[in-house]
Amino acid sequence: MAAQKTVAKNMLWGGRFTQGLDPLMVQYNTSLPYDRIFYSQDIAGSIAFARANLNNDILTQLEFDAIEKGLNQVKEEWANNTFEIQEDDEDIHTANERRLSEIVGKDIGGKLHTGRSRNEQIATDMRLWLRDELRKMEGFLEGLVECSVSRAEAEIDVLMPGYTHLQKAQPVRWSHFLLSHAVTFSLELVRLRELIPRVNRSPLGCGALAGNPFNIDRHAMAKELGFDSLLPNSMAAVADRDFVFETMQWGSSLMLKISRWAEDLIIYSSLEFGFVRLADAYSTGSSLMPQKKNADSLELLRGKSGRAFGQMAGLFATIKGLPTTYNKDLQESVEPMLDHIKTVGDSIQIATGVLSTLTIFPEKMMAALAPEMLATEFADYLVRKGVPFREGHHISGRVVALAEKENVPMDKLSLEQLKGIDSRLGDDVVECLDYERAVELKNATGGTSKSAVREQIELLRKELAGK
Amino acid sequence: MAAQKTVAKNMLWGGRFTQGLDPLMVQYNTSLPYDRIFYSQDIAGSIAFARANLNNDILTQLEFDAIEKGLNQVKEEWANNTFEIQEDDEDIHTANERRLSEIVGKDIGGKLHTGRSRNEQIATDMRLWLRDELRKMEGFLEGLVECSVSRAEAEIDVLMPGYTHLQKAQPVRWSHFLLSHAVTFSLELVRLRELIPRVNRSPLGCGALAGNPFNIDRHAMAKELGFDSLLPNSMAAVADRDFVFETMQWGSSLMLKISRWAEDLIIYSSLEFGFVRLADAYSTGSSLMPQKKNADSLELLRGKSGRAFGQMAGLFATIKGLPTTYNKDLQESVEPMLDHIKTVGDSIQIATGVLSTLTIFPEKMMAALAPEMLATEFADYLVRKGVPFREGHHISGRVVALAEKENVPMDKLSLEQLKGIDSRLGDDVVECLDYERAVELKNATGGTSKSAVREQIELLRKELAGK
Amino acid sequence: MAAQKTVAKNMLWGGRFTQGLDPLMVQYNTSLPYDRIFYSQDIAGSIAFARANLNNDILTQLEFDAIEKGLNQVKEEWANNTFEIQEDDEDIHTANERRLSEIVGKDIGGKLHTGRSRNEQIATDMRLWLRDELRKMEGFLEGLVECSVSRAEAEIDVLMPGYTHLQKAQPVRWSHFLLSHAVTFSLELVRLRELIPRVNRSPLGCGALAGNPFNIDRHAMAKELGFDSLLPNSMAAVADRDFVFETMQWGSSLMLKISRWAEDLIIYSSLEFGFVRLADAYSTGSSLMPQKKNADSLELLRGKSGRAFGQMAGLFATIKGLPTTYNKDLQESVEPMLDHIKTVGDSIQIATGVLSTLTIFPEKMMAALAPEMLATEFADYLVRKGVPFREGHHISGRVVALAEKENVPMDKLSLEQLKGIDSRLGDDVVECLDYERAVELKNATGGTSKSAVREQIELLRKELAGK
Amino acid sequence: MAAQKTVAKNMLWGGRFTQGLDPLMVQYNTSLPYDRIFYSQDIAGSIAFARANLNNDILTQLEFDAIEKGLNQVKEEWANNTFEIQEDDEDIHTANERRLSEIVGKDIGGKLHTGRSRNEQIATDMRLWLRDELRKMEGFLEGLVECSVSRAEAEIDVLMPGYTHLQKAQPVRWSHFLLSHAVTFSLELVRLRELIPRVNRSPLGCGALAGNPFNIDRHAMAKELGFDSLLPNSMAAVADRDFVFETMQWGSSLMLKISRWAEDLIIYSSLEFGFVRLADAYSTGSSLMPQKKNADSLELLRGKSGRAFGQMAGLFATIKGLPTTYNKDLQESVEPMLDHIKTVGDSIQIATGVLSTLTIFPEKMMAALAPEMLATEFADYLVRKGVPFREGHHISGRVVALAEKENVPMDKLSLEQLKGIDSRLGDDVVECLDYERAVELKNATGGTSKSAVREQIELLRKELAGK
Repeated sequence: MAAQKTVAKNMLWGGRFTQGLDPLMVQYNTSLPYDRIFYSQDIAGSIAFARANLNNDILTQLEFDAIEKGLNQVKEEWANNTFEIQEDDEDIHTANERRLSEIVGKDIGGKLHTGRSRNEQIATDMRLWLRDELRKMEGFLEGLVECSVSRAEAEIDVLMPGYTHLQKAQPVRWSHFLLSHAVTFSLELVRLRELIPRVNRSPLGCGALAGNPFNIDRHAMAKELGFDSLLPNSMAAVADRDFVFETMQWGSSLMLKISRWAEDLIIYSSLEFGFVRLADAYSTGSSLMPQKKNADSLELLRGKSGRAFGQMAGLFATIKGLPTTYNKDLQESVEPMLDHIKTVGDSIQIATGVLSTLTIFPEKMMAALAPEMLATEFADYLVRKGVPFREGHHISGRVVALAEKENVPMDKLSLEQLKGIDSRLGDDVVECLDYERAVELKNATGGTSKSAVREQIELLRKELAGK
Repeated sequence: MAAQKTVAKNMLWGGRFTQGLDPLMVQYNTSLPYDRIFYSQDIAGSIAFARANLNNDILTQLEFDAIEKGLNQVKEEWANNTFEIQEDDEDIHTANERRLSEIVGKDIGGKLHTGRSRNEQIATDMRLWLRDELRKMEGFLEGLVECSVSRAEAEIDVLMPGYTHLQKAQPVRWSHFLLSHAVTFSLELVRLRELIPRVNRSPLGCGALAGNPFNIDRHAMAKELGFDSLLPNSMAAVADRDFVFETMQWGSSLMLKISRWAEDLIIYSSLEFGFVRLADAYSTGSSLMPQKKNADSLELLRGKSGRAFGQMAGLFATIKGLPTTYNKDLQESVEPMLDHIKTVGDSIQIATGVLSTLTIFPEKMMAALAPEMLATEFADYLVRKGVPFREGHHISGRVVALAEKENVPMDKLSLEQLKGIDSRLGDDVVECLDYERAVELKNATGGTSKSAVREQIELLRKELAGK
Repeated sequence: MAAQKTVAKNMLWGGRFTQGLDPLMVQYNTSLPYDRIFYSQDIAGSIAFARANLNNDILTQLEFDAIEKGLNQVKEEWANNTFEIQEDDEDIHTANERRLSEIVGKDIGGKLHTGRSRNEQIATDMRLWLRDELRKMEGFLEGLVECSVSRAEAEIDVLMPGYTHLQKAQPVRWSHFLLSHAVTFSLELVRLRELIPRVNRSPLGCGALAGNPFNIDRHAMAKELGFDSLLPNSMAAVADRDFVFETMQWGSSLMLKISRWAEDLIIYSSLEFGFVRLADAYSTGSSLMPQKKNADSLELLRGKSGRAFGQMAGLFATIKGLPTTYNKDLQESVEPMLDHIKTVGDSIQIATGVLSTLTIFPEKMMAALAPEMLATEFADYLVRKGVPFREGHHISGRVVALAEKENVPMDKLSLEQLKGIDSRLGDDVVECLDYERAVELKNATGGTSKSAVREQIELLRKELAGK
Repeated sequence: MAAQKTVAKNMLWGGRFTQGLDPLMVQYNTSLPYDRIFYSQDIAGSIAFARANLNNDILTQLEFDAIEKGLNQVKEEWANNTFEIQEDDEDIHTANERRLSEIVGKDIGGKLHTGRSRNEQIATDMRLWLRDELRKMEGFLEGLVECSVSRAEAEIDVLMPGYTHLQKAQPVRWSHFLLSHAVTFSLELVRLRELIPRVNRSPLGCGALAGNPFNIDRHAMAKELGFDSLLPNSMAAVADRDFVFETMQWGSSLMLKISRWAEDLIIYSSLEFGFVRLADAYSTGSSLMPQKKNADSLELLRGKSGRAFGQMAGLFATIKGLPTTYNKDLQESVEPMLDHIKTVGDSIQIATGVLSTLTIFPEKMMAALAPEMLATEFADYLVRKGVPFREGHHISGRVVALAEKENVPMDKLSLEQLKGIDSRLGDDVVECLDYERAVELKNATGGTSKSAVREQIELLRKELAGK
């Protein structure tokens, strides 16, 4: 802790501190390395604020023009990578204002911050940035759902084993499987569309905590910045990171679903299942084993669900029990938010890429169908003959047991053997051994028959359009 | 692992298992001790299912009548605590069906489960139960917001220090503080109202995973049970616990906000602050220290935010990476859901009780206002005289520093001393030393002036009504 | 909030409260429904405390004898289920003392709590209880490791595919696979043995926070209760729930490993893999599909890892940011701890039961070995002939590619075809196509050769003994 | 997904892929941007591996010398920032080997990877790096404990209110408070010292999963690299990230304790408490309010506990349910580990800086002592006169109540008034009103008397030395 540096000359609280700073503390405290990503949002917010202060007679037209021009120059510098960061630029707000004052002079630049606090600035920057990112995310997610729906439509004839407990259960359409994930993604699309307007609310004009003392027109500023509405209470506006936490709840919820989808495809791409194969673009090999082709993309998707979740969990812990309004703890919401958005956004796109280039092997799926998966059909057959289901279930259980005992597939049992189990198993019982028929019988809404699958496709298409 | 028991006779998979069960495994696997809470939902679902099967000609009118009457008797038994649990009743579905068959005989009872799976049953039971609970929750939460709004309206004249970083910042209205929490609660009310219809969707008629083979009328069943809509894909319907996870996200998000509210009131009820005192009903004493009065209720509220969060985090981890459709892992969603709802529901009510009986000490709040909190007023004063804010900020910083150096409160500095700092501090500068004026100047939307606070009250009232 | 009940007469803080209590608050606050599990610990602690106060001349021999006898009677009542809980018994400490005073009279009973606080009592009770449970856990975990080691020893000749990325990689011994999990379980055994003495430290004699004013002999009390050492600072002693949190860290870490072990066995018990089959005792069937045999036990194990984790995560959030010493928030550590111990303890036993009754199918494992898994052997063969590994790797990659192109298993390529790829592939290259040889070549420490596996078995046996 | 790039020429799996790569996938998959931090560990591991292969006759002395020299040159290039990253360098292992081959030629460079896998390399790199970082951490943490102990020793005469439930409870020594945190930090020091040897175990020589086929001397490699021991099973060695997870458990546990310490000091530095003031180096001001001095450092410490926790929680979720050995999901352990170590390491140092420069205000602490905090002393006084504690507790409760009723501090009640409450309150009762005496009476081990505090100081000093 020996080395210390003289306190910065232009730190915003200027006139008071007399001691030096611990360089590690400077770094621990500084946010510019990551909040510089908000430079254009920060500048847009400042211009809107200055314009409102022009209308409030805090600024003259001349002053406003200088500020606007100056800020646009600062923005250019960021965009062109010519902005020179100074040692004392601890955050994007300080950096932008410092640079503005260099350009337009302190007399004008020093008026920009009138009645404003960095507390409202950072909230404004984060919300503007996040709103735009979430809108991109909406497009990505629509793409993933659309891709699922398109494949479901095109490949509706393909049958595969449906699993419960990773055990073969009943035959289903591959499309039905695809849609079972698509409907969960689509639910997140609905939630995202509810989330965006909650993020897109303006804190600008709330001051440090108590409000703005120059009767600034918050509605006008919000309109200029494209906000949907105003945050209604100044203390809450600077205190809360709800919008980040809800975003992360949404993101981790979506990633949770992607983790299940990835798990399915990883299992299906194992040699033992062999239903699908990833495009080379989304798989890699082994440095030691030349024969390996690993589903890296899917494994990363599954793994990153943990990362996205951890950010949400961490933010909960950070915010929990904080006293009212702004505390510096909240700075810890920024970096996780940036990484969260990148993680989730990339993941949706990667998932879409994987799905759109996936090769499926219908013959392997078909070959994996086992007669035992039709045991329920026997029970249903008996039900149609008036046998109570529970009894039918026991009878078909005995059919399965006999096949096991005889060590033959169930469909190789003779009609005689079947009748030996229960005389109500008539000659027409062989119909039960048709996978396509079994699938088509599941015709109630939400089932796996062709028409029921098509109904789902229509539904999802409507939801995609209904944005 | 020595002790084993013969396999249950009426376990639903009946005809096949031949070995015994590990008694610890029986207990590990059994859900009846907690899923019995769903007895009436399970029975309502069964009656709706039977009625649909009546319309499908699976059941005769006589059979249906017997089933309905029988199930109602089972319900009575649960309600009267006369239902006798048998050793083999591993879950509420098995128990109810076993009992029904005893009442109406196996020939009729054995028909109830036709085309149905426990996978869809448990999802139905949970959703029905949760929907009803969430509707109660909505009422509780409205109560908390209403209580906050009412006090805010009644106590609008009370001033207190507003804090950032737990340091005195600017004076605000006590009402403004109350509303800063109320608006965050109200946001959760909005989310809750979005959540309920997502919970209230019907999985009934989805079978084990592939759908219903008897073309059951899912819409009719959903209508009978008061569901808002159908789950569109049978595999997804039995696979997902989204509705539980989203509920826990909502619940933990609300509890996060309650934790901050509780933290504030705990600090304000410390002797050092002394702004509020809890009613005896919500505080307790010490077994060792007779003088103590502890804010137990608030501490429990704060602590239980962790519990609610842990349930959500745990469910994420449970679901993460699960392969498609139903896996027994999902059973681990039930107990946490039950406890979550109890925790959150009780907490909202306790919070309301605390707030509605809280004593406030306006004179102590007033006494805690310190002249230094008006430093910004000096800067704003200078701004109104055309001084750039940044310069005004430095000047008022020097005022604070001088007061510190002279070891007097800022308002005891002489006019001469003030003018010595900057000649633009004129005779009228003393106006800056009025807390009420400082508060009323924050008159922009969302600020702490009386009219701006009233605007918030109106807004929240509308939101409460807009349900 | 209307209904209220008169404040309890015997609440420990007695003489001061005047208002009523909210019945929901009473229930929200009460811990007896779960902390009653500590009754014998609480009584043992009280006897030790009374004995120390006898030696301090706070109690006479007569008084001590009465207290000891009385407390033993209370213990009997709990054990026999004849203890009658009164409405005002809010926790186990209050209940026990209340009952003691009924038995021995208030004059003597009222002396028990001298210089003592419930803050130290609850910490004592929890630590005593947890210490005993963790010792049981140690035995369970040793059982699981021992079971793995025994099977590894007995089944050392069985080969199976080793996987990375769920893709067949190289052949390994089934024993090597078993031990790969056993060594991770064994690591948790080591951690558990470090944890126990940290749990087993005495808070008794620390008072509410400041220490004991009657110079009580903490060492003597600790010795009587079997504690390993004293907690050194009274404020920390009542403030911390480290021992619970570290226990949950341990438990969730162990469950994390169990989740991976369970995942492997679930996949291996799928029909597609077919390497293992669970005993009926640890699997169940489907209510709809007679052919199903689901690995419920393993799925519950995997699912409960989430539950255990959630408890740890929740406790973190509960404790985070709490101010110093005891706060009522800490009550939220008790229920999660109880459930955590039950969850983890049951899970270890279930896992042991599953493993000890698991059927393996060596011929299916063998059949799953694919010639492509020997591709690395070709590269190693070339390395032994002086070819740089990287080049050898490319050559064996071409072998794999040729086999794929020709659509034959790699071992069906003719020697000619092989030599056509690279002339250094000599006649002896066929040796590479022996799985057993490939396995035995991995003979460095930690490898899958027979001797290397036996080395691991010895190591684990030593660790098991070294307790 | 349109843009694609031709597959990299030198990707380790070389000879097989034929399609292009999605550029986003390339970036999603690439770890070099962060795993380059391991460059020197990776090179040290490669040299040790090459040396072992020299002894195995895989390499000639000439080849080894060339490799060693070449790798040292690569290390230089990284150190001097002259290493030129190529587009296809997806991770540090690939990059280093690619560059080595450029320097020494493919014939020699291509031999380095003989019998080795990137699976073992990354585990080796991470463990070597982490071991060194944790040793630094040990030093930092010793510094924090030492600083606490030193202040505790120097400021042992200072009294302050001890709190439970944030309510004034009993007087304690400031030193006792400091040590109550120091003992919890010291517990983490113990855990850290247990953790380091568990991290410091060698995976080198484990291959991709099955072991090394050239009988490599793992002990020799481990010795060269300073590992404490070998990982005993090759599959486990490449599969587990236990060492990262346990590190994060440790780190989040420590941060949890720091969060409570920070919370205390934040509250104590509020104007209302006023016990301490942070050095300017560790606090900042407000951009809007010139009078503010915020405890930013402490708030960041408190907030970052959430971040550290989130990383641990995220890693749990990532690993949960993964099938055996290496899966790409595990790559998600690297970045969180790096950030975790930085976060925790910086935080310990910042905490030490804050504490070592903190100003305390003993007179304010003293002034905050309230006579009511001595209520227990009255009860103890009566105990010493033979009154049962419970009765004494009620009597002192009445003293508190009378003082409240009379609206005077408890020490202003007349002796007469006191005797009016209970005649056993004799003339000597005034002794009870001495804070120092109350503190010194807590003389049992672990208490707040001077000698009991000194005992703790000795204990911690021993623990610090006993490393």
